[in-house]
Amino acid sequence: MEILSNLTASDAIERIRQKQITSEALVESCLEKIDAREHEIGAWQHIDAVHALAQARDRDKESAQGMLHGIPVAVKDIIETHDMPTAYGSSLYKGYRSPWDAACIAACRDAGAVILGKTVTTEFAYFHPGKTSNPHNMTHTPGGSSSGSAAAVSDGMVPIAFGSQTAGSVIRPASFCGVVGYKGTYGLFSMAGIKPFANSLDTLGVFTRKVADAALMHAVLLRIPLDGKPITSPPRIGRCNTHEWPQADIATRDALDEAVNYWRAAGAEVVDISLPDSFKDLATSQLTIMTFESARTFAFEYNFHADKLSKHMKKIVEDGRAITELAYSKAKALANECRRELPALFSDHDILVAPSSLGAAPQGLDTTGDPLFNRIWTLLGVPCVNLPGYRTTNGLPVGVQIIGLPGNDKNLLDVATWLEAQLA
Amino acid sequence: MEILSNLTASDAIERIRQKQITSEALVESCLEKIDAREHEIGAWQHIDAVHALAQARDRDKESAQGMLHGIPVAVKDIIETHDMPTAYGSSLYKGYRSPWDAACIAACRDAGAVILGKTVTTEFAYFHPGKTSNPHNMTHTPGGSSSGSAAAVSDGMVPIAFGSQTAGSVIRPASFCGVVGYKGTYGLFSMAGIKPFANSLDTLGVFTRKVADAALMHAVLLRIPLDGKPITSPPRIGRCNTHEWPQADIATRDALDEAVNYWRAAGAEVVDISLPDSFKDLATSQLTIMTFESARTFAFEYNFHADKLSKHMKKIVEDGRAITELAYSKAKALANECRRELPALFSDHDILVAPSSLGAAPQGLDTTGDPLFNRIWTLLGVPCVNLPGYRTTNGLPVGVQIIGLPGNDKNLLDVATWLEAQLA
Repeated sequence: MEILSNLTASDAIERIRQKQITSEALVESCLEKIDAREHEIGAWQHIDAVHALAQARDRDKESAQGMLHGIPVAVKDIIETHDMPTAYGSSLYKGYRSPWDAACIAACRDAGAVILGKTVTTEFAYFHPGKTSNPHNMTHTPGGSSSGSAAAVSDGMVPIAFGSQTAGSVIRPASFCGVVGYKGTYGLFSMAGIKPFANSLDTLGVFTRKVADAALMHAVLLRIPLDGKPITSPPRIGRCNTHEWPQADIATRDALDEAVNYWRAAGAEVVDISLPDSFKDLATSQLTIMTFESARTFAFEYNFHADKLSKHMKKIVEDGRAITELAYSKAKALANECRRELPALFSDHDILVAPSSLGAAPQGLDTTGDPLFNRIWTLLGVPCVNLPGYRTTNGLPVGVQIIGLPGNDKNLLDVATWLEAQLA
Repeated sequence: MEILSNLTASDAIERIRQKQITSEALVESCLEKIDAREHEIGAWQHIDAVHALAQARDRDKESAQGMLHGIPVAVKDIIETHDMPTAYGSSLYKGYRSPWDAACIAACRDAGAVILGKTVTTEFAYFHPGKTSNPHNMTHTPGGSSSGSAAAVSDGMVPIAFGSQTAGSVIRPASFCGVVGYKGTYGLFSMAGIKPFANSLDTLGVFTRKVADAALMHAVLLRIPLDGKPITSPPRIGRCNTHEWPQADIATRDALDEAVNYWRAAGAEVVDISLPDSFKDLATSQLTIMTFESARTFAFEYNFHADKLSKHMKKIVEDGRAITELAYSKAKALANECRRELPALFSDHDILVAPSSLGAAPQGLDTTGDPLFNRIWTLLGVPCVNLPGYRTTNGLPVGVQIIGLPGNDKNLLDVATWLEAQLA
C-alpha cells in the first residue's frame, strides 16, 4: 500500500488539488509514521495529533488555493508558534508559549499549510545535542542544530521541515540524513519570531526530499508565484574544494567525485577552481563573529539563568566576552572583502559545488558533527543547497553542497533541480 | 536647587562613583520630573516607581564598577524586558510579558543600569502615533516612532533612552526634540529581543543629551572599554545636501548653514559634495524594501488580528504584498551598488553632514513627520548622529545629521563630540 507520508510536498499538493487524497489522510499518514518510529528517532519536541488533524480537516473544507494547501510542515523549536510551545531546546524556556507566529510560519499558514509540530533542536541551536538519532543508523548523530527537522524529513515523517543555520545547521544535518537542505541568501527570508544566535549569520532554511519542494518553500516564504525555469542546457560548474579540503574524509571526496562524474556525463562543464588566499581565514572569522555576537545575544540567559545553560552555552558566552572588538571588526572586514570577490568567482560558472560536511555522520549522539565546510558560506551569505545521493559502504549518506551568488536563490534552485535529476 | 535628572549620564556616573550622589537620589529625581510632567508629555507606556527605586537601592549597595552603574535608562516599548510588560505600541499585545530581556537591556543591566520604564512607541514602530507631545511645544509631534524616548530625554525625565530606526525613527525625533540621537551601523548592535519591522533595515539607536553619553552606550552595547579619542585637529567635513534637498524647509537649511559656519570658524574644512546620480532612487528603494519586508514580518498579526491593527499597519501589509519580487530585488541591488560607492564618498572627508529632518516638528499629534532625510542613510547602513543646537524663531529645535562609514561608529562619535562642542 502506498504510504502518503513518503510523497513529496509537490506531489501531495497536486493530488490534494485533484481530490485524489485529502489533507487529513496525508496528515494521518505522517502521524502513523511518527507513532511507529518516534521512540527510536526522537525527532519531535511537541506534537499534538488532535490539533494537527483539526487543521487538516479545516483545509479539506476549503478550496485548495494556497501553494501549500493541506501540506504538513514541521518546525524547528527555535521558531515561534502561537498555538504550540516553543522551548528553544532549553529547559529554561520549557512550556513557553509565544503570542505570535514567526513570519515564516505565518507565510506557511497563509499558503494553506498544516503546522504539524515542533522538532528537536540542539540547545538554542548551538552544540548541546537533543535526543534525535540518525534514521540511517540510530547510533549516529543526525547532525545539528536542526536535528529533528533533518531526521523527520529523512524518515518520511513529514515532507517539509524548517531549520536555521548560523554555522552549518542546515547543510550539515541534510548531508548526514540524506535529504535536500536549502538555506537562503542571508537576509532574504524574514527572521521575525526566530530566536537569534548571531545576528549577522543567522539564516532560515528548509529540509525537503526533493529540490522542487525547496523551490516551493522559497516562493511561499517570499509570497511570490512559483515559477521555476527548467535548465535547458547543462550548467557550467566550478568545483571548489575550498581551503578546508585537507580535512575532508574519503567519503566526502568520493561523494564530490561521483556527483561531478554524473554531471559531466550529462553534459555539464566542470572546472576546478581555487578560492583566493584571502578566503583562508574566513572559517576562523565566522567562528570569531559567531562567538562575539552570541555572547551579546545570550547575556540575559547567562546572567540570570546560568544554572540552566549547558557547558557549551556558558563557554561560548564567556569566550565571546573575551574577544576584542578589534578581532571582531577584522573578521567582519575580511567577510566584506571576500563578499566583494564573489562575482568574479562566479563569472564563468553558474554555480559552485563544494563539500557539505567533513564526511558521513559521526558515531555517537553526544556531538552533532563539525560545521567546518559550512562556516565560510554562511559568513559569505550565499544561498546553499545540499544534494543527497552518495552513500558510504556502511549505508550512511553524504551530500554535496551547491552554492550560488547572493540573491540568486531562484536560479540556484533551478540548477539544483537539473543536478539532482542526474544523481537519481 | 540642582535637579539631578538633568545631569548627563557621564556626569552622573562620575558623581555616583565619587559617592556625591546615590543612584536612588538620581532615580527619585527622574521620577519627580515624570510625576510633574508626564500628564502633559505622555512619554511613558509603563513606569513602576517602586521597582525602579528597588533597582537603584540594589545598585547603591554594590561597588560601582559597571559603565552605567546606577544610571536610569528608558526603553522604547518594542524592546523586550523580563520584568516589565512589552506591548509594541499595539492593543493586540497589551499586557504581554516577555520571558527575557532583549540583548541591549541585558547589556545595560550588566553595566549596572537601572531600567526605569518603557516609553511610548508608535504602533509596531510604524506611523500610527501614540500619546506623546513634543516637550518644546505640546501641540507639535515629538516625531516617531521612538516618540516617548526622544521626549523623555528632551524633557529631562531620564538621561538615556533606547530607540530604533527602520526609516527615520531615531534621527527624526532627535531633531524634533532637540537631543542627540545615535543609530549604529546596521548590524552592529544585537537586535535580539526587539520586535522586527523590516529585517534588512531595523537598527538600534539611543537618545541622550550629549554625544559623550551616546559614546558610552556604544561601549556598553558592544561590551567593550570606553576609549573615546578626542579629535586633535578639526575634521574634514563633506556637506551633503542630498538629492532630497529641494524638500528641505528653510529651518533645516538654516540649521545646516549655521552649524557649518560654527565648524568653519573653529577651523574645520567643509566642502560641498554631491551624491552620485545612482543615489537618487535610494529613498524610494528604502520604502520598497521596508514595505515588502514588513508585509512578511506582520503576516501573523494581519491574518489573525487585523481588527486590532491601525489603518496604517493594514495598508503597509497590503502594499507590501503587492510589491513584486523583481521590484524588491532591484531595490536591494541598488542599495548594494550604492554601498560600494561609500568609501569613495568619504575618501577626502572624515564625516558627512546632511539634514536630519525636513524641518522642525510639524504641528499636530496625528502624524509623526516625514523620515525622507533618513531613508537613504538607514538603507545604506551607515552610522548617524543627530546634533541639536539650532532653534527656529518659534523655539523649536532642528538638528543636523552627521554620517560616518559603516563600522566607523567610534570615530564618528569622536568627531561628533568635537562638532557638538563648537555648537554649544
